[in-house]
Amino acid sequence: MDKRPELAAGFLSRLRAILPPKAVLTRPEDCWAYGYDNSRRHSLPQAVAFPACHEQVARIVDACNQYRIPLTARGRGTNTVGATVPLQGGLVLSLERMKKVLEFSPENRYLIVEPGLTNEEVQAIAGSRGFFWPPDPTSAAYCSLGGNLACNAAGPRAVKYGTPRENTLGLRAVTGAGLEIRTGVRTSKGVVGYDLTRLLLGSEGTLAIITEATLKLTPLPEATQTLRAVYRSVLDAAEAVSKIMAQPIVPCALEFIDGNAIAMIRGHSACDLPAQAGALLMIEVDGPREGLDSAAAKVAEAARNDGLLDLRIAATRQEVEALWQTRKALAPALRKIAPKKINEDVVVPVTAIPELIEGLNRLSAKYKLPIINFGHAGNGNIHVNLLLNPNSPEQSRKAQDCLDGVFTLVLALRGTLSGEHGVGLEKRDFIDRELDANALELMRAIKRQFDPNGILNPGKLLPPG
Amino acid sequence: MDKRPELAAGFLSRLRAILPPKAVLTRPEDCWAYGYDNSRRHSLPQAVAFPACHEQVARIVDACNQYRIPLTARGRGTNTVGATVPLQGGLVLSLERMKKVLEFSPENRYLIVEPGLTNEEVQAIAGSRGFFWPPDPTSAAYCSLGGNLACNAAGPRAVKYGTPRENTLGLRAVTGAGLEIRTGVRTSKGVVGYDLTRLLLGSEGTLAIITEATLKLTPLPEATQTLRAVYRSVLDAAEAVSKIMAQPIVPCALEFIDGNAIAMIRGHSACDLPAQAGALLMIEVDGPREGLDSAAAKVAEAARNDGLLDLRIAATRQEVEALWQTRKALAPALRKIAPKKINEDVVVPVTAIPELIEGLNRLSAKYKLPIINFGHAGNGNIHVNLLLNPNSPEQSRKAQDCLDGVFTLVLALRGTLSGEHGVGLEKRDFIDRELDANALELMRAIKRQFDPNGILNPGKLLPPG
Repeated sequence: MDKRPELAAGFLSRLRAILPPKAVLTRPEDCWAYGYDNSRRHSLPQAVAFPACHEQVARIVDACNQYRIPLTARGRGTNTVGATVPLQGGLVLSLERMKKVLEFSPENRYLIVEPGLTNEEVQAIAGSRGFFWPPDPTSAAYCSLGGNLACNAAGPRAVKYGTPRENTLGLRAVTGAGLEIRTGVRTSKGVVGYDLTRLLLGSEGTLAIITEATLKLTPLPEATQTLRAVYRSVLDAAEAVSKIMAQPIVPCALEFIDGNAIAMIRGHSACDLPAQAGALLMIEVDGPREGLDSAAAKVAEAARNDGLLDLRIAATRQEVEALWQTRKALAPALRKIAPKKINEDVVVPVTAIPELIEGLNRLSAKYKLPIINFGHAGNGNIHVNLLLNPNSPEQSRKAQDCLDGVFTLVLALRGTLSGEHGVGLEKRDFIDRELDANALELMRAIKRQFDPNGILNPGKLLPPG
Repeated sequence: MDKRPELAAGFLSRLRAILPPKAVLTRPEDCWAYGYDNSRRHSLPQAVAFPACHEQVARIVDACNQYRIPLTARGRGTNTVGATVPLQGGLVLSLERMKKVLEFSPENRYLIVEPGLTNEEVQAIAGSRGFFWPPDPTSAAYCSLGGNLACNAAGPRAVKYGTPRENTLGLRAVTGAGLEIRTGVRTSKGVVGYDLTRLLLGSEGTLAIITEATLKLTPLPEATQTLRAVYRSVLDAAEAVSKIMAQPIVPCALEFIDGNAIAMIRGHSACDLPAQAGALLMIEVDGPREGLDSAAAKVAEAARNDGLLDLRIAATRQEVEALWQTRKALAPALRKIAPKKINEDVVVPVTAIPELIEGLNRLSAKYKLPIINFGHAGNGNIHVNLLLNPNSPEQSRKAQDCLDGVFTLVLALRGTLSGEHGVGLEKRDFIDRELDANALELMRAIKRQFDPNGILNPGKLLPPG
């Protein structure tokens, strides 16, 4: 186990004065698990702190400023881009024990909570009164609200309901300078001052540490209908996506799997798709029960084209399960075939999906790397998976070149490098291809204002200036 | 006509080198109309420029920086808070001639346009393919898109569809430093870098001048139903608002008029409301035609309580007109009774509306000023109108004290000072009551980064430090 030098004694004794003994870890073996996230990178922190409240967070940030200790705030570490890996060691601030529900006001459609609640716990509270909080990166049972906010994590429902930036009214936070700020409002409208709420959402813990959030709640839909459409080719499926997005019924999920993914699934599990299946769409519509059949029928109509091979609408819970089976077989098949993969989450305008997939196939052939694509087609948000042989360093190098090609392609199609995974470490050195130098310089300037000593999550999100 | 000293000859000749002769005004009589907005304040600019494109804007900002000329960007000046009054003179930059449609992609649900288009022109383009852009501050025919964005203007549909911050994907802009930035994406998701898009929306031209906007479009609903509910008291109406907002059907308008307003309307036009009417709700629901009757019935059910005096659902276009008649009689009656009024647009959580109205009635009695309230109840956004005798300076002073009481009340109810009008000059010196000192200092720091010489809309939005 690698070991870093101990933190300054003065810092540790301040930390121990702020927190009870069980809320500070310093032994490397205890800190180990706080050194990685779902990026599979690892960097050992010298200490881990578990604050119980806003005030403790503020005092810890003060101490880190005094001793210039790098501070990486973290929820449950489910992000895939290294955003919570403590690159320079220092202190990891785990917010997992801050789980208080401060106020639940269904009549006003808001819920004020601390960031340590899991997404599922948030949903349970909201659900008890007929509401939900739309963002869910499909890891609800484990991922924390704080991480969802810091990464502006979205998930499949974003196509209809938006991301945290559309579903958060206000925040309480401690800036990198150790100052408390309250941003936003408790109401669904408010235009007093600059929008600091959205500035913090998606800033990956580089500007401030969120200690409370006022979430905007949405009423749970009465019912949902599930459709599965199978196409001859990606082009046919993409045409359907455009047509679906051009009509008035907005699906609450519009998920896509390409032909490579179908071929892989076919090799690893029972698959009821036609032999010529080249792409698959999973579509869900939700809303009041009355009119939902007709809404599903309209979406189905938009999904129909000459390349449609099969279209099914599930009538029962069992049928819904059966339709999702192919999609759900994807993750285990992927893990089996390619324990090592690079999983990107690029976004292009939906009409550019066919060009994206064609271009990815060309890159796959050129670099002799299998590429499997699936994702949130309604947003044009495609998870591009480069499958690697874990024992081949040469393939890893080729994958980097291929990835470069993927990003070039996405930007040429006027897309963005990340729809929901964020930047972290993984994409940090690529974002200057998407963002212009002036915008990047302003972001650096904003970072300096919030975090003058650069203690918050150093080395993340913004490429070195 | 008051007259300011002429601008430096060097500046004017640079301006004339950038723009054709007809795009620069310098005679006070020509500049006069660019010195005011709907706040009825006036401050004469020394010149008005009409750029035709982004590049001209950038060169003009450069020139203003070189000569330290205050620059106030403006759309059509419909804001009510003095946000476009050139307080320190200098140059007014009118974007009204920048009306190019750069790209319309209904399949990708976006429209890229210049800021000089009116809101109505934007709606017409979007509508030609079955879409709309939800923000509309009810002055669509005249107000400009650029002004809508700069003020984050909202209007009645915000209760269901959100404000510009929820309906804008990206921007092109020239910062106060004269630098071009592009923010955001063309897609409905994107998490690369800090959210500069939302930072500029609502910043009232103090950070940058928006030269292009990528608008997120929404499909036009198939049909709309209109309901009118009359209540014995504001408390009854407010209870109905809370119940409506706690059930799954979100109305696309939920407008409120208080008893004072009804009494006033009664004195000035035919009014079919019951004699005991103490409050009125106008409710609209939209969506697919099928199921809409049932949606309206559910909303009607939520609107029912012991204080309900009358509930009507319009079945024909004529009936819709008839139901809106009382609401529409409000503005002319107000103008007749009180040519001078202070029109605030405070917001409180919807459950706090009764307390707000009660408190306003107390303030009205204390200061002997009639107060008329109406607004967007679904957002808790109430337009509070203090009616003044235009010839009484004493009443003007009392009104200022009363206004102070209004703001204290709103903040005690955990609301915000402005839901859609913005800050400008009118509320500039009040916002430090709502925003904490740390947040305000960060806003000032951000302003310095975007606009180091402080040339953009000086004296607006942020109180002097």
